[in-house]
Amino acid sequence: MSDIYEKIMDLAKRRGFIWPTSECYGSVAGFIDYGPLGSMMKRNIENIWRKFYIVNEGYYEIECPTIGQEEIYIASGHVKGFSDKMCQCPHCKEYLRADHVAEGHQIPGASAMKSEELESVICTLPCPACEEVLGPVGVFSFNLMFQTTIGPGSQRTGYLRPETAQGIFTDFQRLLRFYRDKLPFGTVQIGKSYRNEISPRQGMIRLREFTQAEAEIFVHPDEKNHPRFYRYARYEMPLLGVPQQMSGESPLSMTMQEAVEKGVVANEYVAYYLALTHDLLVRIGVAPERLRFRQHLPDERAHYAEDCWDAEVFSGRFGWVETVGIADRTDYDLRAHEQQSGERFAVFLPYEIPRRINRIRVVPNMGALGPRFRGSAKAVADALCACIPGPEGITLTIDGREVLITPDLYEVREEVVEVPGEEVTPHVIEPSYGIDRMIYAVLEHSYHEEIVDDEERRVLRFPPAVAPIQVAVFPLMNRDGLPEIAGEIADALRSRGILAEYDDSGAIGRRYRRQDEVGTPFAITVDYDTKEDRTVTLRDRDSMRQVRIGIEGIPDLIRSLIDGTASFVEL
Amino acid sequence: MSDIYEKIMDLAKRRGFIWPTSECYGSVAGFIDYGPLGSMMKRNIENIWRKFYIVNEGYYEIECPTIGQEEIYIASGHVKGFSDKMCQCPHCKEYLRADHVAEGHQIPGASAMKSEELESVICTLPCPACEEVLGPVGVFSFNLMFQTTIGPGSQRTGYLRPETAQGIFTDFQRLLRFYRDKLPFGTVQIGKSYRNEISPRQGMIRLREFTQAEAEIFVHPDEKNHPRFYRYARYEMPLLGVPQQMSGESPLSMTMQEAVEKGVVANEYVAYYLALTHDLLVRIGVAPERLRFRQHLPDERAHYAEDCWDAEVFSGRFGWVETVGIADRTDYDLRAHEQQSGERFAVFLPYEIPRRINRIRVVPNMGALGPRFRGSAKAVADALCACIPGPEGITLTIDGREVLITPDLYEVREEVVEVPGEEVTPHVIEPSYGIDRMIYAVLEHSYHEEIVDDEERRVLRFPPAVAPIQVAVFPLMNRDGLPEIAGEIADALRSRGILAEYDDSGAIGRRYRRQDEVGTPFAITVDYDTKEDRTVTLRDRDSMRQVRIGIEGIPDLIRSLIDGTASFVEL
Repeated sequence: MSDIYEKIMDLAKRRGFIWPTSECYGSVAGFIDYGPLGSMMKRNIENIWRKFYIVNEGYYEIECPTIGQEEIYIASGHVKGFSDKMCQCPHCKEYLRADHVAEGHQIPGASAMKSEELESVICTLPCPACEEVLGPVGVFSFNLMFQTTIGPGSQRTGYLRPETAQGIFTDFQRLLRFYRDKLPFGTVQIGKSYRNEISPRQGMIRLREFTQAEAEIFVHPDEKNHPRFYRYARYEMPLLGVPQQMSGESPLSMTMQEAVEKGVVANEYVAYYLALTHDLLVRIGVAPERLRFRQHLPDERAHYAEDCWDAEVFSGRFGWVETVGIADRTDYDLRAHEQQSGERFAVFLPYEIPRRINRIRVVPNMGALGPRFRGSAKAVADALCACIPGPEGITLTIDGREVLITPDLYEVREEVVEVPGEEVTPHVIEPSYGIDRMIYAVLEHSYHEEIVDDEERRVLRFPPAVAPIQVAVFPLMNRDGLPEIAGEIADALRSRGILAEYDDSGAIGRRYRRQDEVGTPFAITVDYDTKEDRTVTLRDRDSMRQVRIGIEGIPDLIRSLIDGTASFVEL
Repeated sequence: MSDIYEKIMDLAKRRGFIWPTSECYGSVAGFIDYGPLGSMMKRNIENIWRKFYIVNEGYYEIECPTIGQEEIYIASGHVKGFSDKMCQCPHCKEYLRADHVAEGHQIPGASAMKSEELESVICTLPCPACEEVLGPVGVFSFNLMFQTTIGPGSQRTGYLRPETAQGIFTDFQRLLRFYRDKLPFGTVQIGKSYRNEISPRQGMIRLREFTQAEAEIFVHPDEKNHPRFYRYARYEMPLLGVPQQMSGESPLSMTMQEAVEKGVVANEYVAYYLALTHDLLVRIGVAPERLRFRQHLPDERAHYAEDCWDAEVFSGRFGWVETVGIADRTDYDLRAHEQQSGERFAVFLPYEIPRRINRIRVVPNMGALGPRFRGSAKAVADALCACIPGPEGITLTIDGREVLITPDLYEVREEVVEVPGEEVTPHVIEPSYGIDRMIYAVLEHSYHEEIVDDEERRVLRFPPAVAPIQVAVFPLMNRDGLPEIAGEIADALRSRGILAEYDDSGAIGRRYRRQDEVGTPFAITVDYDTKEDRTVTLRDRDSMRQVRIGIEGIPDLIRSLIDGTASFVEL
């Protein structure tokens, strides 16, 4: 009996969702092709993501190159720190992730070990590929960025981006001007990212080339209340915080309002995107009972992050899989680029009314200082301006000598200064989505087998907005004008932007099953009655119920069923 | 006075269409960022492309990795042949394209010269960077693929794809099964491609990372009539064929029907995609008078191609720029992968009715051959089966000896055989679009300057479906409830999938100008009358005319104006 992953991938390959890449040359681990149905489903999911982040949140999308110059990834820390610990089996020459070898034998804390520790731990363990004991073996850091050269003559090192986020950070100054120098603002990017995994063995879960959808929201460090928090304040969902993990408890179910008030989540921004992510994942077809939000433990969390959560989906093969990360990254990224580039990554925020501030200023009496200190008079004056003298004056060190400067040599003035605003380095809230893992989760969670009429029915219960084919149109027979009517219905649906497929081959029952297997939520059959009364049969994938509806209203009805403004049960 | 390119790029940078990439680190030639408006416009254009190819043509999209293994590009010829001739200036060390140096001095045929020829030609020319005479300088081939390594230990060479097409070819067998083993079928891909240009100096026109949209249509070699040719048969457009180019004539205007009948275009498929491309480019905002279709001259055309045309757009800075290529590539690509992979890239096409074929078969008389030839009897029998003897028999060479086989040693039978179908290697029709160049063309062709009320008005006359902001919504004043009404209108538009922007800052005239400059076709202003009679002002970008319309119908009306089912003039 094959496991769920094998069943999914078998279906996915056979029906054109996911294919091994360049199979005729033996394919390459860590790369996949999205076939016709997979690519359509992927686009549907990306567009739902856009609906949440671009339409609803009002954040604009940008598109940066996948190849970046070295400086970007020096600043981000990827050149130095984006690596895994690797060793090579001396027997079979296979490259191995040293921490995975140790973890495979229940050695705790392997992912945090240094090379030497790992060497001493794995030398007694068998190679997972050839099963010989590894023996003394060197453990090295292997950088996970794909490297290349821009231009001829090794002119310039380039890297394939390990995340889309850096493009948004390096565009910060341009973006700030686009958003007219105001906080908060958000920017998103959907695109390919790359990690040169040492030896990926987990199919769609660990890809060397994958699609990310990231949002970077730039906020005032002291204003982490989301302006539209009301949208999710009463959204209730289970949270697996650090305390629950430490004591082995179950997640706590609470509203986002409570989560912020009780300090379970750091602030409204993080809570808002936790809820939005839950909403989005369930909307695309992730099963809520196989979805959890887990807070990073102190040793997982980046030192600069104020709070960090992962949305994890449960897979029958892989267990809990990190799929979305939501973090308050503070000002780490902008400060890193500021330091590397020497440019300012900050916002000048004018106060609504310029603030008046009392300031004490020391004004040297040059007429008196000049004759007394001669060539050192200027140095004394400068030193005076930078200090606040006491009632007796102040002792300064001038040219190595201590000198008492008495009050007759200067004047202390109290002034009121007008300050127009403040310069602020924004904090970054980052929800980061792995699109391929989301697609795999939807495939696995949508997959059902059931016995119908003594036969196994395989069905993908996709939400209509995610299904690669939203409605199938069949002529009952391939003659007597039925194909023409069915063709016209399919065209009418397509011209309304609905993904419709026409199919006239095989028995009608087989055609239904074929569509069930690829998750088509609705099927329309044109039969001989259609010619009499211009009605057709509309079949619902999940209940397999059929109703009779008129031809004219089909596109509107299907659109409403897809958008969820109508439901099949009410027809 | 700056030229058109500078004007466009200045506007594009300032308003968030196109930005130099990672500018804080000095950017890198050949890479650009699409800012918020550019990215939106790009997505609009890609979706219009999808409407033509996926919705109207019924071709599915697939998505393959951008990193490919070496075998793919050995088969495609890119490892061997995808290179430019390069030299390095001995004085300033700049890398130069040797053919461009020669072409810069009006030396004809430079692009076709071998390295030695170029060396002898350019040694007397000045370096375009430092202006010193180059002198004796080596010319080398530089492969334009970005190279990288997949996995640790230099395990496997990978290349960033130079075109999206190869992913479709290597998936051919899977695609064929998806399309149920029938011809014709088409598959498309939109995504990043890469060319490591030697020293790109043409901004958006010559990118090292760019977006392609390619369709590969697999057709029967003997059936190159497009099944939906009627759609474009009477479409008339100017064609600059080989004869017109040879004799310096103007393009000939004709319908696609005529073009095929007169042999100007090789077949209906090529003609159909020429017309579709013209239709598509004009639809997205390319000016028809700055668009031409030019046939490849015999020395430009790949040896295997049956016909090949470029859609070229005219730029005030760059002249005629190749933007789309449409080619009949015959069976070259599939045969190349067949040879490299050892797999069969063909379709078995059953005849509607199996064909009966007369065949002559030689049946050896083993009873007579055995005693006569003993150990060689089997060899004689095999040789007999493979030939057709004459009336006197046949002379065969057996073990080096010539032997006459007389008719008593065999029987000749005439048989009727049933042949169920034929195996065919499809031909490929390929329309290939450069999305970035299309975007640049639309920017340049849409750009207008005019004097309005003694001030210069800059306006991008984008078609509504291409504009990154489709409608702007303004409250006349930032008080008295006007912002709330305007905000509700913007929300209602967004929920209908319309790209709406709310803007409340600055004088109303300035807000109109700001929107004109980014090509927003419509603007809605909420004023004090709105509160009385629930009407608003709708302004048309191009005519600057304003009409009064009711709030309720706004989303429907704007949708119709965008789709072109309503026109502003009729309001």
